[in-house]
Amino acid sequence: MNTTETKDPKSNSTVVDTSDALVTSPDPLHPANLIPELCKGFYHLGWVTGTGGGISIRDNDKVYIAPSGVQKERIQPSHIFVLPYPQPSDVVQRTFLRKPSIPLKESACTPLFWAAFDLRNASACIHTHSQHAVMATLLWGNKEGAEPVFRVSGLEMIKGIRWGGVEGAMSYLDELVVPIIENTPHEEDLRDSMAQAIKDYPKAAAVLVRRHGVYVWGSTWELAKTQAECLDYLFELAVKMRLAGIDTDWRPEA
Amino acid sequence: MNTTETKDPKSNSTVVDTSDALVTSPDPLHPANLIPELCKGFYHLGWVTGTGGGISIRDNDKVYIAPSGVQKERIQPSHIFVLPYPQPSDVVQRTFLRKPSIPLKESACTPLFWAAFDLRNASACIHTHSQHAVMATLLWGNKEGAEPVFRVSGLEMIKGIRWGGVEGAMSYLDELVVPIIENTPHEEDLRDSMAQAIKDYPKAAAVLVRRHGVYVWGSTWELAKTQAECLDYLFELAVKMRLAGIDTDWRPEA
Amino acid sequence: MNTTETKDPKSNSTVVDTSDALVTSPDPLHPANLIPELCKGFYHLGWVTGTGGGISIRDNDKVYIAPSGVQKERIQPSHIFVLPYPQPSDVVQRTFLRKPSIPLKESACTPLFWAAFDLRNASACIHTHSQHAVMATLLWGNKEGAEPVFRVSGLEMIKGIRWGGVEGAMSYLDELVVPIIENTPHEEDLRDSMAQAIKDYPKAAAVLVRRHGVYVWGSTWELAKTQAECLDYLFELAVKMRLAGIDTDWRPEA
Amino acid sequence: MNTTETKDPKSNSTVVDTSDALVTSPDPLHPANLIPELCKGFYHLGWVTGTGGGISIRDNDKVYIAPSGVQKERIQPSHIFVLPYPQPSDVVQRTFLRKPSIPLKESACTPLFWAAFDLRNASACIHTHSQHAVMATLLWGNKEGAEPVFRVSGLEMIKGIRWGGVEGAMSYLDELVVPIIENTPHEEDLRDSMAQAIKDYPKAAAVLVRRHGVYVWGSTWELAKTQAECLDYLFELAVKMRLAGIDTDWRPEA
Repeated sequence: MNTTETKDPKSNSTVVDTSDALVTSPDPLHPANLIPELCKGFYHLGWVTGTGGGISIRDNDKVYIAPSGVQKERIQPSHIFVLPYPQPSDVVQRTFLRKPSIPLKESACTPLFWAAFDLRNASACIHTHSQHAVMATLLWGNKEGAEPVFRVSGLEMIKGIRWGGVEGAMSYLDELVVPIIENTPHEEDLRDSMAQAIKDYPKAAAVLVRRHGVYVWGSTWELAKTQAECLDYLFELAVKMRLAGIDTDWRPEA
Repeated sequence: MNTTETKDPKSNSTVVDTSDALVTSPDPLHPANLIPELCKGFYHLGWVTGTGGGISIRDNDKVYIAPSGVQKERIQPSHIFVLPYPQPSDVVQRTFLRKPSIPLKESACTPLFWAAFDLRNASACIHTHSQHAVMATLLWGNKEGAEPVFRVSGLEMIKGIRWGGVEGAMSYLDELVVPIIENTPHEEDLRDSMAQAIKDYPKAAAVLVRRHGVYVWGSTWELAKTQAECLDYLFELAVKMRLAGIDTDWRPEA
Repeated sequence: MNTTETKDPKSNSTVVDTSDALVTSPDPLHPANLIPELCKGFYHLGWVTGTGGGISIRDNDKVYIAPSGVQKERIQPSHIFVLPYPQPSDVVQRTFLRKPSIPLKESACTPLFWAAFDLRNASACIHTHSQHAVMATLLWGNKEGAEPVFRVSGLEMIKGIRWGGVEGAMSYLDELVVPIIENTPHEEDLRDSMAQAIKDYPKAAAVLVRRHGVYVWGSTWELAKTQAECLDYLFELAVKMRLAGIDTDWRPEA
Repeated sequence: MNTTETKDPKSNSTVVDTSDALVTSPDPLHPANLIPELCKGFYHLGWVTGTGGGISIRDNDKVYIAPSGVQKERIQPSHIFVLPYPQPSDVVQRTFLRKPSIPLKESACTPLFWAAFDLRNASACIHTHSQHAVMATLLWGNKEGAEPVFRVSGLEMIKGIRWGGVEGAMSYLDELVVPIIENTPHEEDLRDSMAQAIKDYPKAAAVLVRRHGVYVWGSTWELAKTQAECLDYLFELAVKMRLAGIDTDWRPEA
């Protein structure tokens, strides 16, 4: 089979394309080219070593997703899955427009990426296993009865974050609050608690997963990436500050 | 419009060029080529992640400035703004020789870069969000009544710094003093306090901005860059020393 | 001599090839091309600086091994040794299919790599001198009477490790246990204690060597590499956690 | 002038070549090609930022040296100085075979490199400003009456060091001892104390300079580089160990 048709008129069933047509483009900014390039950069930042983490990009009615369990710095455009958007977020089996011809499974983060697309109208979602994110979840909101959130204020880099990840930019005067959800043995089981955290914290630009990492999104891939960088910088700096005994709750006056 | 003329003889108003003529050169050391290359290097040093920071280069009567809010490791020469020099530093709206044809705004640091050009006759100014600079501002000159400066002495790397950033080299016997100004919600509002710090500390090669980063300049782009490296090294090392309980005020005898 | 024959029919003795035939391939995934490329990556991770560490790949009945005492980021395919597999693991002098034509000695880790091939049926084995691995051996299982193992639980990255390095994936609910053997003056003398540790800890994916580094293997080179990355991440994070006073033995409930 | 002659027969004075003949070679291992490449690598290790540090290579009767005060990651072969070897080490003005045609001064480390060539018969000498080296000089041998040396034992990486930098390899059982000399305002003034330290510690492979960095040499450029890597690893690890309260004097029994 070598076609981009997704409906077989005779059976009305979904026919999945395994050709490279949907993931071949000379444009370096095509999602199928961008995902491998960005993942290579994330690898060198220590965000996606050991096959963990990645990025999904939504281009209007198509979602591009990398395979699970592969070395993220060695992804090829031909490894990318393409899914139609929208589709129900709670389906057991997703519909695909395109699958790689070699045996690969789509990223286990797919339901989590979908929550960001559905609930925030995001166009890109990044998941990292950054140690700075994990350390933040171990030093914040981890005590009996504490609200499960990471908080920091009084740092310039907060201005790089958007309210809810997709609205107007935060100010230097604002406190950054990122909800922390508890990790589960299976990544897809995080879906409900991540969706709940997104609803409970409508102004938050990301969701931390305790002992695991972080999900960050944006209304473009550029904003997802720059917000992931700002948040990682803030997690790292806040952890250093706390370990050095510096107040992380100091807040500038308006 | 596709011209490098900046004055319209009929109206006497300023006509801004949007062609690539002023930013196209086969010379890798042309400011429009250097700025993207240097910013890529700064990105990998952790100085300009998440769109923060950058470098401006003045080539006699022209100033080259990168756009604001973009990924600094992905700047293209065609994104660079060109401004005539000199021009009043306190103007609300600056005069441009060239603007990118795509919708971009010049760096929010422009008034700060200008202060270094005007007050120090610098030919390049670098702004970083380095965590070492931020940590230095949290561990030095931060107590009630303390002089707001970072101080260190007795380290070889001090020899890489020039007095005032543009004069003779400091000696191993000298104490490095860098003033720290308080951060403000809007970057352009730092202009007056930075200008004041430059005047109050005429021998200082840089200005630290609390909870934010540092501005470093030089009489050439090479000296701005090597001084930024020396200062970042000294911020990092002094923070490590202080956290390890090592005296950072030790001073060699002449 | 320029032949790939390994038996001289007249003398029945082994004739070692010094041509480049066995290590020349246009395929970037050929072991003789992969070893140099992977070692360059390991160098930049700080795993194999100063000639230490490396990777050996077994392709069915052939084992590819780098030379000892060379800069690991500068290996050429023509430097690679090829050995037939299987062959007795305790031989004093190994049999070779191919040796470099310049005077080089095979890696001193050869008997250790062999233990992973023989006892775990591994197809690749990585040895690093990572400081995170060394710090883990100094902070875990180092007290009088303590079981000589590194232990950590409650971290997502554990899911990237396979039981025994080659079986099914570990779960987030599982505790990671890596045996630690004592270092010896000569690397080859580690062979017996490493073999014993592999037998005593049949579920362990690696063996740490106190004050030295770690050996990690996998059923493919990809799995050896991704497990080495996951383990290094866990050593680094667990050391950070312990130094920050965070419990590394916390374990999620099923 | 465009000649490689070094003696003017009419005047018997030394004629210095400013052509590129002595520094032009297609061989990537020619010292004039190696020095720029190695310095670029050292820059990314944080050893030579801000123009500090570098490497000099002696090829029998010729010594190749980089300029002083330049960005070490941007050196070109045409910037390299060539000096005849031997020549008196205490001369005020050195003899040159070749100088760059642009105004540059040879590295201020030249007398220090020369000490390693003369007193150890080294063929390469590396100087770094690594923060790990500086921290080692601040945490070891720094107390009133203490012997000014860095000491560590019981770490595998010691095996990568040669006795005196140029003899047989050290064993895992050996203690590494590196003398520390006090820094001086002018780099060339370190010459006498470095020469004295080399004589006083004939088994040492390097000399640390307090609050400054380290000089490491070897009988080849490869051994100078791999020993510099091993030493830097040991400085970094020993500092981490000491700050974590781990004994750095533990010594394995033979």
